[in-house]
Amino acid sequence: MTVLPNLSEHYSDPKTYPPGVAFMDGQYLPISEAKISVLDYGLLHSDATYDVVHVWNGAFFRLENHLDRFFAGLEKLHMSIEYDREQVIEILHNCVALSGLKNSYVEFICTRGMSPTFSRDPRDAVNQFIAFAIPFGSVANQEQMKHGLHAAISSFVRIPPNSVDPTVKNYHWLDLVRGLYEAYDRGADTAILVDTNGNVSEGPGFNIFAVIDGRVLTPKLGVLLGVTRQTVFDICTNLDNDCSAVDIPQDQLLVADEVFISSTAGGIMPVTKVNGQYIGDGSPGQITSQITESYWDMHNEKNNKFVIKYLDEK
Amino acid sequence: MTVLPNLSEHYSDPKTYPPGVAFMDGQYLPISEAKISVLDYGLLHSDATYDVVHVWNGAFFRLENHLDRFFAGLEKLHMSIEYDREQVIEILHNCVALSGLKNSYVEFICTRGMSPTFSRDPRDAVNQFIAFAIPFGSVANQEQMKHGLHAAISSFVRIPPNSVDPTVKNYHWLDLVRGLYEAYDRGADTAILVDTNGNVSEGPGFNIFAVIDGRVLTPKLGVLLGVTRQTVFDICTNLDNDCSAVDIPQDQLLVADEVFISSTAGGIMPVTKVNGQYIGDGSPGQITSQITESYWDMHNEKNNKFVIKYLDEK
Repeated sequence: MTVLPNLSEHYSDPKTYPPGVAFMDGQYLPISEAKISVLDYGLLHSDATYDVVHVWNGAFFRLENHLDRFFAGLEKLHMSIEYDREQVIEILHNCVALSGLKNSYVEFICTRGMSPTFSRDPRDAVNQFIAFAIPFGSVANQEQMKHGLHAAISSFVRIPPNSVDPTVKNYHWLDLVRGLYEAYDRGADTAILVDTNGNVSEGPGFNIFAVIDGRVLTPKLGVLLGVTRQTVFDICTNLDNDCSAVDIPQDQLLVADEVFISSTAGGIMPVTKVNGQYIGDGSPGQITSQITESYWDMHNEKNNKFVIKYLDEK
Repeated sequence: MTVLPNLSEHYSDPKTYPPGVAFMDGQYLPISEAKISVLDYGLLHSDATYDVVHVWNGAFFRLENHLDRFFAGLEKLHMSIEYDREQVIEILHNCVALSGLKNSYVEFICTRGMSPTFSRDPRDAVNQFIAFAIPFGSVANQEQMKHGLHAAISSFVRIPPNSVDPTVKNYHWLDLVRGLYEAYDRGADTAILVDTNGNVSEGPGFNIFAVIDGRVLTPKLGVLLGVTRQTVFDICTNLDNDCSAVDIPQDQLLVADEVFISSTAGGIMPVTKVNGQYIGDGSPGQITSQITESYWDMHNEKNNKFVIKYLDEK
């Protein structure tokens, strides 16, 4: 007689989760409850787009820019959600407010979803919207914020635009993860990938900037059009610094006066070593520091922030 | 006073699922219960590898080849699971046996997982193993199996090997999905992507073959080393057909005598139209039919099958 193990009725989850609140299918949930089916094409085909906005001191920073990109991405991927822009804002707001987090990393996702018959035709799938707020996280830790990151330029090429449209924020990260492990092997903290022409492109979760002869430069093509990247352009305009999107050969990065990275997860972060070589004098540069200061100052400007109404505020 | 919506204790899932059984964290579950956290990097970075084996008439087909590839992929991605090969076989067997499915699509996955602190360092994550058995599915439906698929050669380039290693079976499909929508727009059933040199590469879930002057040809580089692709090589050896992995310029595909695709999801499937032009006389070719017949015959060979012991067999 064949003896088989028992079939459990419900999944018992052994994992522990960070604090946070999620939204799925009309329900606000503890982050530990926010799960997608293993049949969702968001997992099985990485067929999804998303955005991340951060909350700092109880207010979203530049939420509108993130929403613009998210809704544009949906259209490019032939996806739709049942919520309009105002409703998405309300959902994101409620996730943060219910979490009580004053500094938060807020992600909103649309996956292709699944069809009840597991059809392989993406047009048969019901798209799935998910949002969650968890504690604020940064690409760089405090030590790295102070002294700078060590980045290794990878031999791997960032997935090119003629394969995957980089302006649609996506989860295709195996090249970046491959770069990260390579960087760890070389004693670095993070990786910088190149484009198909050998120019600098982007790293795992961030855009890259080089300061050369007083000019602030960032890769032009094949990169995510980061909201923080755009913020750097805006800051440079205010500071009367020249900031341009250009091709940056990898050799040029090594001899730059300053290097920094930008991300919603951490803001502006100094890079003081590339491929084991110090950049400038090996400490965060003056223009980098100036831009970092302006970046955090901007969080207090009325037109950049959207204030969360928490439960304890009566 | 701020009024916020209620936080639900548990997620109430409105979706319906196909029949099937999954395995996660030591538990066998109905497929509807198999879910991963939205914080799992398998979703958030598509940082995962997987394999799919099919069960036909109550037996796995060429399970060993799928296991070889899966374990090799784990190593290349710096992942590990707590089960050895024999244990994975037992898990896959039990999923199918518990599902009762005689023809099944059996997928097993390892995701990077998550860390309780949501660390961005992949080395901090606890890798997650998942397996599931659902009803057998095919790239081509019955009509297409009989009359052949219409494929459109895409202008999009399959993600190149210097970005993502195609020998590690992965979920980076946005290029393939983009190709699919483009194909639908052009009245075709599916898409064939090209490589960076403009040669034929692969399609959404399948390898491609062209029969030219009696030779069976398939792209050499930048493609998944499909188990069904290898099976075609083996069949050709048995049939005394010349089968080679070579560069196939896209123009050559249009003037091929026969075209077919191979996948664990469907086996050998004829393509009778490419870019709106008939291939050969527009019906499935003789060599294609011969290989298809051999493919299904091989399912009865003892060394290719692993018989499932279902509950009703005493």
